[in-house]
Amino acid sequence: MSIAPDTSINPALRVAVVGAGYWGPNLARNFAMSSEWELVAICDMDLERARALARKTGEPAVAGSLDELLANHDIDAIAIATPARTHYAIAMQAIAAGKHVVVEKPLADNSVHGREMVQAAAGAGTILMADHTYCYTPAALKIRDLLADGELGEILYIDSTRINLGLVQPDVDVFWDLAPHDLSILDFVLPGGLRPLSVTAQGADPLQAGKSCIGYLSMPLDNGALAHVNVNWLSPTKIRQMVIGGSKKTLIWDDLNPQQRLSIFDRGVDLDRQEMIRTDTEDRKGATISYRLGDTWSPALSEFEPLGLMVSQFAASIRGNKPAPTDGASALRVLRVLEDASASLANGSAPQFNTETSAMENAS
Amino acid sequence: MSIAPDTSINPALRVAVVGAGYWGPNLARNFAMSSEWELVAICDMDLERARALARKTGEPAVAGSLDELLANHDIDAIAIATPARTHYAIAMQAIAAGKHVVVEKPLADNSVHGREMVQAAAGAGTILMADHTYCYTPAALKIRDLLADGELGEILYIDSTRINLGLVQPDVDVFWDLAPHDLSILDFVLPGGLRPLSVTAQGADPLQAGKSCIGYLSMPLDNGALAHVNVNWLSPTKIRQMVIGGSKKTLIWDDLNPQQRLSIFDRGVDLDRQEMIRTDTEDRKGATISYRLGDTWSPALSEFEPLGLMVSQFAASIRGNKPAPTDGASALRVLRVLEDASASLANGSAPQFNTETSAMENAS
Amino acid sequence: MSIAPDTSINPALRVAVVGAGYWGPNLARNFAMSSEWELVAICDMDLERARALARKTGEPAVAGSLDELLANHDIDAIAIATPARTHYAIAMQAIAAGKHVVVEKPLADNSVHGREMVQAAAGAGTILMADHTYCYTPAALKIRDLLADGELGEILYIDSTRINLGLVQPDVDVFWDLAPHDLSILDFVLPGGLRPLSVTAQGADPLQAGKSCIGYLSMPLDNGALAHVNVNWLSPTKIRQMVIGGSKKTLIWDDLNPQQRLSIFDRGVDLDRQEMIRTDTEDRKGATISYRLGDTWSPALSEFEPLGLMVSQFAASIRGNKPAPTDGASALRVLRVLEDASASLANGSAPQFNTETSAMENAS
Amino acid sequence: MSIAPDTSINPALRVAVVGAGYWGPNLARNFAMSSEWELVAICDMDLERARALARKTGEPAVAGSLDELLANHDIDAIAIATPARTHYAIAMQAIAAGKHVVVEKPLADNSVHGREMVQAAAGAGTILMADHTYCYTPAALKIRDLLADGELGEILYIDSTRINLGLVQPDVDVFWDLAPHDLSILDFVLPGGLRPLSVTAQGADPLQAGKSCIGYLSMPLDNGALAHVNVNWLSPTKIRQMVIGGSKKTLIWDDLNPQQRLSIFDRGVDLDRQEMIRTDTEDRKGATISYRLGDTWSPALSEFEPLGLMVSQFAASIRGNKPAPTDGASALRVLRVLEDASASLANGSAPQFNTETSAMENAS
Repeated sequence: MSIAPDTSINPALRVAVVGAGYWGPNLARNFAMSSEWELVAICDMDLERARALARKTGEPAVAGSLDELLANHDIDAIAIATPARTHYAIAMQAIAAGKHVVVEKPLADNSVHGREMVQAAAGAGTILMADHTYCYTPAALKIRDLLADGELGEILYIDSTRINLGLVQPDVDVFWDLAPHDLSILDFVLPGGLRPLSVTAQGADPLQAGKSCIGYLSMPLDNGALAHVNVNWLSPTKIRQMVIGGSKKTLIWDDLNPQQRLSIFDRGVDLDRQEMIRTDTEDRKGATISYRLGDTWSPALSEFEPLGLMVSQFAASIRGNKPAPTDGASALRVLRVLEDASASLANGSAPQFNTETSAMENAS
Repeated sequence: MSIAPDTSINPALRVAVVGAGYWGPNLARNFAMSSEWELVAICDMDLERARALARKTGEPAVAGSLDELLANHDIDAIAIATPARTHYAIAMQAIAAGKHVVVEKPLADNSVHGREMVQAAAGAGTILMADHTYCYTPAALKIRDLLADGELGEILYIDSTRINLGLVQPDVDVFWDLAPHDLSILDFVLPGGLRPLSVTAQGADPLQAGKSCIGYLSMPLDNGALAHVNVNWLSPTKIRQMVIGGSKKTLIWDDLNPQQRLSIFDRGVDLDRQEMIRTDTEDRKGATISYRLGDTWSPALSEFEPLGLMVSQFAASIRGNKPAPTDGASALRVLRVLEDASASLANGSAPQFNTETSAMENAS
Repeated sequence: MSIAPDTSINPALRVAVVGAGYWGPNLARNFAMSSEWELVAICDMDLERARALARKTGEPAVAGSLDELLANHDIDAIAIATPARTHYAIAMQAIAAGKHVVVEKPLADNSVHGREMVQAAAGAGTILMADHTYCYTPAALKIRDLLADGELGEILYIDSTRINLGLVQPDVDVFWDLAPHDLSILDFVLPGGLRPLSVTAQGADPLQAGKSCIGYLSMPLDNGALAHVNVNWLSPTKIRQMVIGGSKKTLIWDDLNPQQRLSIFDRGVDLDRQEMIRTDTEDRKGATISYRLGDTWSPALSEFEPLGLMVSQFAASIRGNKPAPTDGASALRVLRVLEDASASLANGSAPQFNTETSAMENAS
Repeated sequence: MSIAPDTSINPALRVAVVGAGYWGPNLARNFAMSSEWELVAICDMDLERARALARKTGEPAVAGSLDELLANHDIDAIAIATPARTHYAIAMQAIAAGKHVVVEKPLADNSVHGREMVQAAAGAGTILMADHTYCYTPAALKIRDLLADGELGEILYIDSTRINLGLVQPDVDVFWDLAPHDLSILDFVLPGGLRPLSVTAQGADPLQAGKSCIGYLSMPLDNGALAHVNVNWLSPTKIRQMVIGGSKKTLIWDDLNPQQRLSIFDRGVDLDRQEMIRTDTEDRKGATISYRLGDTWSPALSEFEPLGLMVSQFAASIRGNKPAPTDGASALRVLRVLEDASASLANGSAPQFNTETSAMENAS
């Protein structure tokens, strides 16, 4: 799938941003800067906050409620940047009004709501997209291309670490706060999306904050591969790193090393599996295992603002009537892993086997 | 407990090294260099290998069997560096002959054997010690002191990573190959030893090598703390890092950074728990959580060969008739966690609750 | 000298920013945000550019010339962010009108002009200050305090590296582009300011760009110490590092490592100089030289915008009628080292001995 | 030139090591391990030290003097690992006796001696080689190949840093102690050897140790390129890094990063020089300068002991009667730069123009 901006000479699409709090200003700024969009309105119950944002983004109109927005303004799409628990109601009303919708992560506060949103958009023929911003970084796009081209071979393991001395959130645990980033990236870069065989979560709340502040997710994938995610609010050092080990090459994305974000190592272990069946002596080891210690390659990455590409992609999806890479179905897969993680935590870290995944996908 | 060399003027203790393969030469060399020890003999079924090692270590005698060794040589102690499956038989025979014993890790091939070894040594009044070499590094010793002094406060979490493009072993999986290092260090530095409430293992064998090549261990500790270990034979980069997060400070041991192996961060999250009970609004967050962003300190570490300190410690334990920090009971705790990990793997990553730990400890 | 913001309840000082190009917007934004300042006007020959900047900074007035600005607006001070060759004329006119002046680096295009500016301000009783922004970073402030307190002991050497794949400038060489940062920091942190005994420059123009793209500055200081600066536009990697070696401790400022910008090493070489006079044998070495290998310490640094502190400092200097740490005299010392570097380059890298420094200082 | 070991079935060459102090044991061990050499004798005035070394290297004979060695033992070559001031006398006597000679760095204590040694060996038809060990590292060999193949384009600059908290030497300054490594590497990797247009040294002795403890060497090369070397005994951190900037690519050798010792950056600045002649306006910049920000590549390096390759190369040179890459002429170039550095230091850091280089080369 191409992720290039649409450069056609169509008139700009008309959008409103709903929610002028933490993330809304970033969305508004990028819509305002885009030649493909016209930012028509800012909507927030706090009208003063809406007006302050409007002043910085070219003076679009302001609206104090979704009803008012939909009644008074001719828009093609809305971008939702309100608290997660409100996503469902806002999106459903907008979809019912025939609007395209992009939603800040997570898609919704639970997968039942998320599934309804996906189904409603499918029924209405509108685009439903998640603002999984990290997926539109140069690094994630490059990884997606490398995996699509089979550059790493078969995936053997994935290990993602996102730790920091972070803000302990009042309403969600560390899984729901940080892991959506890792999970949405995995869904984006893996050729078939993120479809784990099971989900197991280990959490710890050593501060007795009433929720996990440290978390580990284990997700077996097909063919014996294993994806693992580590999130932590209590780490004194900041790490944002993803390792994707393949049968041919292994990739490391170190997001905090701007001089070498991506490294692709031509190193690995090769097993001659035929041999392994026939021999069972200590000599076997020498005979059937070999190690590659080849070159390392760090591709140059272009520099651009991921959110700028995200809003372009939203426009392209609408114009082409085709799902974005981070469409509602993708966001729903992420949501379901998060729910499974919570279920695993509630069940003494027992693995959760998500039996509905394939059925669900038909709906989307 | 002091871990200083014994500097008394006692005559040197007499030791034989059993096994002249991979690790035996390191033991023999350190015993030969020590003023507290006289290396009396090298014992190996392969007499040529024994003779070659003897030539490099001051020409001790050679013996082709344990019977021959015990019959012909006046020794106080033996050091066992043979394959793990032979540790039990050799140690039991030596203990029965009244010899002190130091054993290369792991203590034995299973905990039933290990427990018998501990009990036999206790009955015979001889010292049984494990050569957990990493525990005698300057970094581990410093960490042990810091934790004993309460410098980090209450332990909140531990995260240990030991990954590398390592040799896929013919006889053991990655847990039994690499995790003994992490586990023995944890047992050494934690004031009460390593006593997890449960053990859960996630493994992956994406090369279909017939054993886990990638592994994760989760071990809840008292008070909501969580210890986690990641071992991996397939990583293109080498990491040996342990993070110990405490309520007061957090420590990072980066063993591959010789210029700053230990860093102690005065950073963390503080919760006012009283407050938390009374309030339940979003304001709570600001009111009850605070962040420390203090200085980082990297203590100077002296430089010495860990194995040299280990053989000194063995001598000191014998002379003082007191257990070493890495005594049989410690090695048995490590062994039991490894067994629990294997049991968890065999049971779909179900947590294993080791109910015998406390009973066991009485025996040692 | 204290560098704290003035928190008095005086009415805000009135300032105009002259120059709305590259750096002017940063100055205007910080003056606009400061409670100590009122941003009265933006002045630029390009009125459209002035208006665009005014729209983003609270709609101050705009003026198309300095004459217009001074004639029509009641201001206390101006901030000059125009090309270096125009600094002199603008500053002299403003000083003559009794205005306080802060100038973007470098102070002027040559030291004759710079000296006149310093003398004019002294004569008029107005504040003349240079916007040496790096001096107002948390790291530079901490270093200044550490050196003022003698924490490093006697300064032995300074080594500063500022290299990058940078923009080859059309009008200045790499010394005049990058070294002002290093030199102004040195002048700021060294207790007596930057007063080298001589200045030697090595330059290279391997691209035949008509100017040095790579440069090295050597500046012997008192007591055998040596300061060295390396600037480079052609480096594929970016380094911004300053090492300050002292007789007691050594400090490293790694500006691109946000997790540990400052490290203070209690490591060094100690010579017993008395001994050295009496002995002259090879034994001398062991007897008189000793090495310290102590702890490393990384102080926590607060986070703030350096330019915000700079504008506060400008206000405090005006209100207290006292020179800022980066006053005209300081900026003149930096300018003279740059001129000496150019002279050294023009004379086959011969050392330049700046005989006027002490005389000059009297004037300021 | 190929640097592969000679694999012919010739009988082993016979060698004696002269000097059993610091470096001699490394040479003796590598000669003893080599199938191309037979270690015949160890020669040291301190016979006990010679015997101790002989015991560890297969029991060659021992000799207490060079006369005794040459009189009593049938040898093809000697390896000199004695203090630098004795190299000349020992080498000249050995060459006069028709022996091939390899000398520990530096070749001699001054270039007059060094030149005589080169001429004597040329006259006698024997091989004279310097043990510039770093040149036989996998990284240096790779760099030599890359430069020979023109992979970096034209050399623009070289910047080498070798700093550490090192032993302050009793008899030499930091230039003579550390810079031979950098200079010999440069002579080895640069296609035409190290032939600077001039040599300028800046030194500092802030501890008043009576010699430079910190040093900078600047060496303009052909075509506007500049080589620079920084050596320092007082640095709290250890750096061994060489940057070689080329018109096509730039290489960084970070010898303390075993996971990525060599990085080759396809980054740089391109000037269109034609354009530059015709235009002289500010627009020129945009028109004629462009930046490449391409991939980074880190080649895999094999692992071997450099000294093992050095002794192989010595054998190959003798058997093929061809100079080694680190032959006497190369070592003499290094020696002359060191002498020029000393002369520059003694002359207030004035550049030294070595007018004899080309004449000298004819002799070798």
